[in-house]
Amino acid sequence: MPTKLIMLQRYAEQQASRRPVMIAIAGDSAAGKTTLTAGIATALGPDRVTAVCVDDYHRYDREERKTLPFTALHPDCNYVQIMEQHLQLLATGQPVLKPVYDHDTGRLTRPELVEPREFVLVEGLLPLHTKLTRACFDITIYLDPPEEIRRGWKVKRDTEKRGYTADQVLAELARREPESAAHIRPQREFADLVLRFAPIPTRQDPPGTPLSAELLLRPTIRHPDLSAVLDDSERRAIHLRMRRDVDGRPVDALHIHGYAPAEESRLVRKAIWSRLGVEAGDPPELLGDLGNGQRSEPLAITQLLLLYHMLGAAR
Amino acid sequence: MPTKLIMLQRYAEQQASRRPVMIAIAGDSAAGKTTLTAGIATALGPDRVTAVCVDDYHRYDREERKTLPFTALHPDCNYVQIMEQHLQLLATGQPVLKPVYDHDTGRLTRPELVEPREFVLVEGLLPLHTKLTRACFDITIYLDPPEEIRRGWKVKRDTEKRGYTADQVLAELARREPESAAHIRPQREFADLVLRFAPIPTRQDPPGTPLSAELLLRPTIRHPDLSAVLDDSERRAIHLRMRRDVDGRPVDALHIHGYAPAEESRLVRKAIWSRLGVEAGDPPELLGDLGNGQRSEPLAITQLLLLYHMLGAAR
Repeated sequence: MPTKLIMLQRYAEQQASRRPVMIAIAGDSAAGKTTLTAGIATALGPDRVTAVCVDDYHRYDREERKTLPFTALHPDCNYVQIMEQHLQLLATGQPVLKPVYDHDTGRLTRPELVEPREFVLVEGLLPLHTKLTRACFDITIYLDPPEEIRRGWKVKRDTEKRGYTADQVLAELARREPESAAHIRPQREFADLVLRFAPIPTRQDPPGTPLSAELLLRPTIRHPDLSAVLDDSERRAIHLRMRRDVDGRPVDALHIHGYAPAEESRLVRKAIWSRLGVEAGDPPELLGDLGNGQRSEPLAITQLLLLYHMLGAAR
Repeated sequence: MPTKLIMLQRYAEQQASRRPVMIAIAGDSAAGKTTLTAGIATALGPDRVTAVCVDDYHRYDREERKTLPFTALHPDCNYVQIMEQHLQLLATGQPVLKPVYDHDTGRLTRPELVEPREFVLVEGLLPLHTKLTRACFDITIYLDPPEEIRRGWKVKRDTEKRGYTADQVLAELARREPESAAHIRPQREFADLVLRFAPIPTRQDPPGTPLSAELLLRPTIRHPDLSAVLDDSERRAIHLRMRRDVDGRPVDALHIHGYAPAEESRLVRKAIWSRLGVEAGDPPELLGDLGNGQRSEPLAITQLLLLYHMLGAAR
């Protein structure tokens, strides 16, 4: 019906004019997605950011999953096609009525209206699972902590915040492992940035030393020219090195050392902020918050680089 | 991002190829929407029909509405923009995750996946409320019973099936009247067919006589040439008359008389079915079911004409 098509087109055009910047943060359960995004959202301000967790697109609730042959990580356990549809709608500036999965009760409940603001932060287990979802993002990030570290984080969180015993969490991790390997970890190759927070194996740093960060900067988006930033005086806190990724592709690996004196890292952070000319004034505070009262300079610098990309994509 | 646009376009094209026939049945509460659609859905078969009630797009549940200055009939009480979006998606052959309003509990609950089949029957209070929703339909119908008859139907249903007292229902009807006038009844003018089931004022038919039907056939869609059907022998059961609508527009008014002998009406029904050449064989049975064990030939013939339009639009 021509009328219909005309209306649909007008609608699309009208909406296209206010396209938000779409950022995906993919990673396995307890890989640090929330910690990473919280600081960014705070730095930009809630009125500029819409946060979406795609784990809300579960097709079955916790009770129903008990009778099913797969875990919540499996694409068949999620409304992948609806996730694709909603990401497309958000990417073109349209609101969606997003399903809601209650992590406390394990129940699917009343959906909520989500309106895309200037930046849409999409985190979850499968945001990069399909070609169509990936096409919806301006910047894609994969969180890739060493498995033993992630296990520690998950046990800590699920026992402290979700009322499980350590044994229950470890059993669930074992049950999920094949699906993590099959569906979650393959998303790593599609990320513009791969982030790994871990201690440096070759060093014996005292306990309490913040984890170091390794950022793989893939050439799929334009990264800042850090050569201008990383002069000798800063080599101790941060350095850039080209290497081959596990798949053989050449990547830039940015290393941010958790053992470097905080003061030095702060200088680096200010230098990056000012010399990259992202915005005038000092870098936003509240970056690097680990959520447990502690701060991490490597996390702060990582979040700063993400802010650089997001603000750049918005221009 | 070009990638994104290409993906979005491919997706739209891929989906456009399986566009369902979209039918809207609008009308006030207890105007007879369900009775009308039930017969059609049964006749076509569940595997060919997707039924959607747009009253599920309520923004607030029953509890929340108590503190609000409007009733469920008010557009501000509904996610109209999401309703527009979902109707567009269904009209282009895409599934939606539809919100669900539980009429028994008055609660908004877990949404459900709706995949458009060959025919999508959309009924509810506001399906024709906006230009964009109207643009999504191939056939639009408005149910327009006399108010006193609708009140009787609503009292009967809400006391028998929804646990209200008659006084509660009448009080609610009074409370809703201004919003019915402002938001529901204005949809009448946008319908291709306006259906009114009522006794004929000029006659004293015995109680139990089925209500007669008046169908306004607006020239906004192509109606069957009934002149071929309505020869003299059938005038008693059904006749067509041109008149001016309340807004002065000329319309064809098809009158189907409830007092006509059932046998005669059955002949008319067969005649319409065969001479219109909708489908081979006899007209589908199960038409005209009033849901209370009784049948109505005027309803059956009305449903038959709707089937004619739906099957025609599908070609």
